[in-house]
Amino acid sequence: MLSPLIALLERYMPLEPAERQALQELANQPRRFPAGADLVLEGDRPKEARLLLSGQAFRHKTLADGRRQIMSFHVPGELLDVQGLFMTMDHSVCALTPCEAAVIPHPKLVAMFEAHPRLALAFWRMNLVEGAVFREWMLGIGRRDAYARVAHLFCEVLIRLRAAGLSDGARAAFPVTQQHLSDALGLSAVHTNRVLQQLRGQGLLSFSGGELVVMDWAGLQAAGEFDPAYLHLSEAN
Amino acid sequence: MLSPLIALLERYMPLEPAERQALQELANQPRRFPAGADLVLEGDRPKEARLLLSGQAFRHKTLADGRRQIMSFHVPGELLDVQGLFMTMDHSVCALTPCEAAVIPHPKLVAMFEAHPRLALAFWRMNLVEGAVFREWMLGIGRRDAYARVAHLFCEVLIRLRAAGLSDGARAAFPVTQQHLSDALGLSAVHTNRVLQQLRGQGLLSFSGGELVVMDWAGLQAAGEFDPAYLHLSEAN
Repeated sequence: MLSPLIALLERYMPLEPAERQALQELANQPRRFPAGADLVLEGDRPKEARLLLSGQAFRHKTLADGRRQIMSFHVPGELLDVQGLFMTMDHSVCALTPCEAAVIPHPKLVAMFEAHPRLALAFWRMNLVEGAVFREWMLGIGRRDAYARVAHLFCEVLIRLRAAGLSDGARAAFPVTQQHLSDALGLSAVHTNRVLQQLRGQGLLSFSGGELVVMDWAGLQAAGEFDPAYLHLSEAN
Repeated sequence: MLSPLIALLERYMPLEPAERQALQELANQPRRFPAGADLVLEGDRPKEARLLLSGQAFRHKTLADGRRQIMSFHVPGELLDVQGLFMTMDHSVCALTPCEAAVIPHPKLVAMFEAHPRLALAFWRMNLVEGAVFREWMLGIGRRDAYARVAHLFCEVLIRLRAAGLSDGARAAFPVTQQHLSDALGLSAVHTNRVLQQLRGQGLLSFSGGELVVMDWAGLQAAGEFDPAYLHLSEAN
């Protein structure tokens, strides 16, 4: 059941049998969340951590007037609310598609980290990659024009879904609305839509009905000035 | 020498004598960096970690055409390149003022984490707060108008410098140029300058010669829609 997590951690660090066993013991009856449901809410002080087992989710935060920013998209194997292990959630995590998550009591997780300090480092490393994605998005929202921003996001999504075994590298189910996209990109829906049409008109991608098809990977990568280094996908420790 | 680090960690978690001792053993001859020097560079795969002991620093990343985004400002006690413990640096860290940093060999840090797993969790928690700051900035850059963005940044800076013992809560040395500010805010220098004059005209703050003086904290907080919850300053574990 925890194979997406183990695959993700083993990408970076060979696990010892005792470590793999300790991870397997985190497994329990997964909880299901319908698309659009929040898995954890800003202001919560959860007593368990949610590990995504299937489906896609996203982090978001909303201003008092309702303007929303999406901060990241997530794939199976990722711990969605590790922040809750130490402090109050300062943002929410929402199911983009129907999701299954293992809900792991914090004491169980902490006991595992104390018994297997290398696993704490492995989870921390996973968390650092999330920080790298936040920074890359910040660079994009702050300094890239709308065209590069949209292209960059689709490059990232395709690469991450492929790494999670959810894409063949050309097509992927990514059922976001244009509102999700614009909230992730810091753009208006109108502006996002204009760029999408431009990318489609240039033969780089098509995106409809929640399906992303990349027709020209090199072209899309150039349009987004996309360098996957910040995803640290192939860097073993 | 490591008192800023110990103060920072103890804000969240009471340390045991053996843990405090293990932290003290990280100390060594600090390295000095002049203002404007990079402490660690994008693309580096460092063999040591840099712990800021005095001065202020910032994270930044630059697009191919030279447009820069600053991702965070840092105060003493913070580990500046924990990312380098696990992977290649995907951004640089620069000294804003003259800085001193303890340069700690990675094996020494990892040995400490394996011997004292609670310390790994404490450093991880420190790192999670950094992630929270990235998300808050992303929300600001993506969704706040320029006026709220500038006010929000000055609120954050004042609160964090005060928590680090570098401000009395009304004044602080924060020697950024308007270029630094606009690179942190995702704005043009002209736009940043206009908002600064507006905030000054409203009697909320003055900012010149690298000195920030907040005249009306409640007013500035309202202007920036600033809620310090994301800094998790007073949340013990």
